[in-house]
Amino acid sequence: MPDRTLTTLLPDVEPIPRDWLVRAEARQLELTKPPHSLGRLEELAVLAAAIQRTLQPSVCRKRLVVFAADHGVVDEDISPYPQAVTAQMVRNLIAGGAAASVMARSVGADLTVVDVGVARPVIAAPGLLVRRVAPGTRNLARGPAMTTSEFGAAFEVGLESAADAAAAGVQMIGLGEMGIGNTTTAAAVTAALTGRSARDVTGRGTGASDEMWLRKVQVVERALALNTPDPDDAFDVLRKVGGLEIAALCGLAIGAAVRGLLVVTDGFIATAAVAAAVRLRPAVAEYIVAAHLSTEPGHAALLQFIGARPLLNLSLRLGEGTGALAAFPVIVAAVDAFREMATFESAGVANRTP
Amino acid sequence: MPDRTLTTLLPDVEPIPRDWLVRAEARQLELTKPPHSLGRLEELAVLAAAIQRTLQPSVCRKRLVVFAADHGVVDEDISPYPQAVTAQMVRNLIAGGAAASVMARSVGADLTVVDVGVARPVIAAPGLLVRRVAPGTRNLARGPAMTTSEFGAAFEVGLESAADAAAAGVQMIGLGEMGIGNTTTAAAVTAALTGRSARDVTGRGTGASDEMWLRKVQVVERALALNTPDPDDAFDVLRKVGGLEIAALCGLAIGAAVRGLLVVTDGFIATAAVAAAVRLRPAVAEYIVAAHLSTEPGHAALLQFIGARPLLNLSLRLGEGTGALAAFPVIVAAVDAFREMATFESAGVANRTP
Repeated sequence: MPDRTLTTLLPDVEPIPRDWLVRAEARQLELTKPPHSLGRLEELAVLAAAIQRTLQPSVCRKRLVVFAADHGVVDEDISPYPQAVTAQMVRNLIAGGAAASVMARSVGADLTVVDVGVARPVIAAPGLLVRRVAPGTRNLARGPAMTTSEFGAAFEVGLESAADAAAAGVQMIGLGEMGIGNTTTAAAVTAALTGRSARDVTGRGTGASDEMWLRKVQVVERALALNTPDPDDAFDVLRKVGGLEIAALCGLAIGAAVRGLLVVTDGFIATAAVAAAVRLRPAVAEYIVAAHLSTEPGHAALLQFIGARPLLNLSLRLGEGTGALAAFPVIVAAVDAFREMATFESAGVANRTP
Repeated sequence: MPDRTLTTLLPDVEPIPRDWLVRAEARQLELTKPPHSLGRLEELAVLAAAIQRTLQPSVCRKRLVVFAADHGVVDEDISPYPQAVTAQMVRNLIAGGAAASVMARSVGADLTVVDVGVARPVIAAPGLLVRRVAPGTRNLARGPAMTTSEFGAAFEVGLESAADAAAAGVQMIGLGEMGIGNTTTAAAVTAALTGRSARDVTGRGTGASDEMWLRKVQVVERALALNTPDPDDAFDVLRKVGGLEIAALCGLAIGAAVRGLLVVTDGFIATAAVAAAVRLRPAVAEYIVAAHLSTEPGHAALLQFIGARPLLNLSLRLGEGTGALAAFPVIVAAVDAFREMATFESAGVANRTP
């Protein structure tokens, strides 16, 4: 069972209203196109309409939130990049030079970068929200990654981000992250939640060699054996073998679903957070669009766990929310088409002979 | 061999410069991301850079061209929609109510609609280019769809559209079409070019019943047996079993490649035109981005024929260029990231330990 003090943090998530799904599907049949000919774009629009309880849905106001944090597990030499890169990339993200910064501009999305626990504080700068819970996690190969209060604080940063987004009128939120070492962390979370072996769900991350990959697998195995996270308690899993940014993303996914935002996952790390969110509140799964299928081997296992089919398959493995950003304009176009297309009646177009 | 009068219409297409591909790939490695971590987005940016011969490529100025035409083969009862729908949908496209109209607005693309041979002329309206070659094709199940001069005129409409786009500064062009009956036509073109059976490449189109589907297959078989198009002569194939909009799209693909535009295919019909273009000028294939994989069974055969992997798989089967429009912002984001991302050096980010 989840820790009593943590469960007080956990809001209820309502399922999407079935009657609005039905109404939106019926509306699709009136629009000037053969039935179902827009395929997955029709599904996306129906989802947005049902979440927003309107036949005039919009997801034009979109935001990517990137939570950044460091991971004590880098002591095990599991990444080809030094830990300092987390802080350097946070600066790059807010300066506009990271992939996610450029792609956010390209697709017209807000970008919010949150330091939830980078090892060395990044100098305050416009565009950076400082919500530091700790200077990174402890090494999960030697004990729990976080204390209960650290985990709770990081989770609350995510809930707060969801509230901020909703208050700003955001309709669609993307889940991004930055943290050297976090594919090892996400592999541990994935193995714990899904019951898959460390070997099956551990990948090359930013480019691990064979030797480094084997070390990652062993670190994940050791972390699970040592910490024995309870697979039925996603809070326990995230606290013991997760990361501060993963905890915050879990809170963001839940908080965004509570507020009726469409939630767009990214790759392996973001989806590990969503899997934990779905374990805690199964209805969260209904608000999720899985942006893409990453090349990280654990990602498919997570998508299966949350029951999501990826929208894109672009062989991405960068993180930062770049996959969510690539999916954003496709989702916007799908919803715009639903809202603005003519009907057979309004356009004077003959429908098919019955 | 192609008809002598037609070959005079056919411009040369230069292969993409190999040295620019190499330079663009080298540049990708300097940008602040693990090598190749943007997957197919990196390939798209490298392609745009090489086509434009610059490390500062842009595909922000994008246009969808929709060629509309009618098909005499509708006499064989192969579509669940009446022929009048072609003209009605042209009006809907220019009035802004069709899927492609809305999606073009959504992704910030110009939309050009060209009547290249709708059966009954559409009343002139802003946004409609009238380049009528004939009031539709003849019934390909009873003889050649077009005369040589009709085919040549339609092909030239496509070349002219490419010139117009280049003159307007367009950098990326999408191929769209509207024409009741044109999945039957495209199936005949596909079977003729690829050597596949009519049964393998004929689909349900806008929603054919089992009975109607079987009739489509038989019509395609009859058209091929009667017209005996020469598979080595794509002009002969398009003239005998193609359509006016397919001929125009073929001209557009070739003309756009000549002018160094990135060419984004759509679904089955547009890709049939591109397959003919590639048969005529193999270098055209290098300028093509295959936007998506349609649910029409012949589409995969065409993509294989031109050696293209689809970017998206959204179960679309609408046509109009909607798949190209869905792909546009993904391609723009890929190219923007390449052009605007910081380098490890400029951002002061540590690169991986060698």
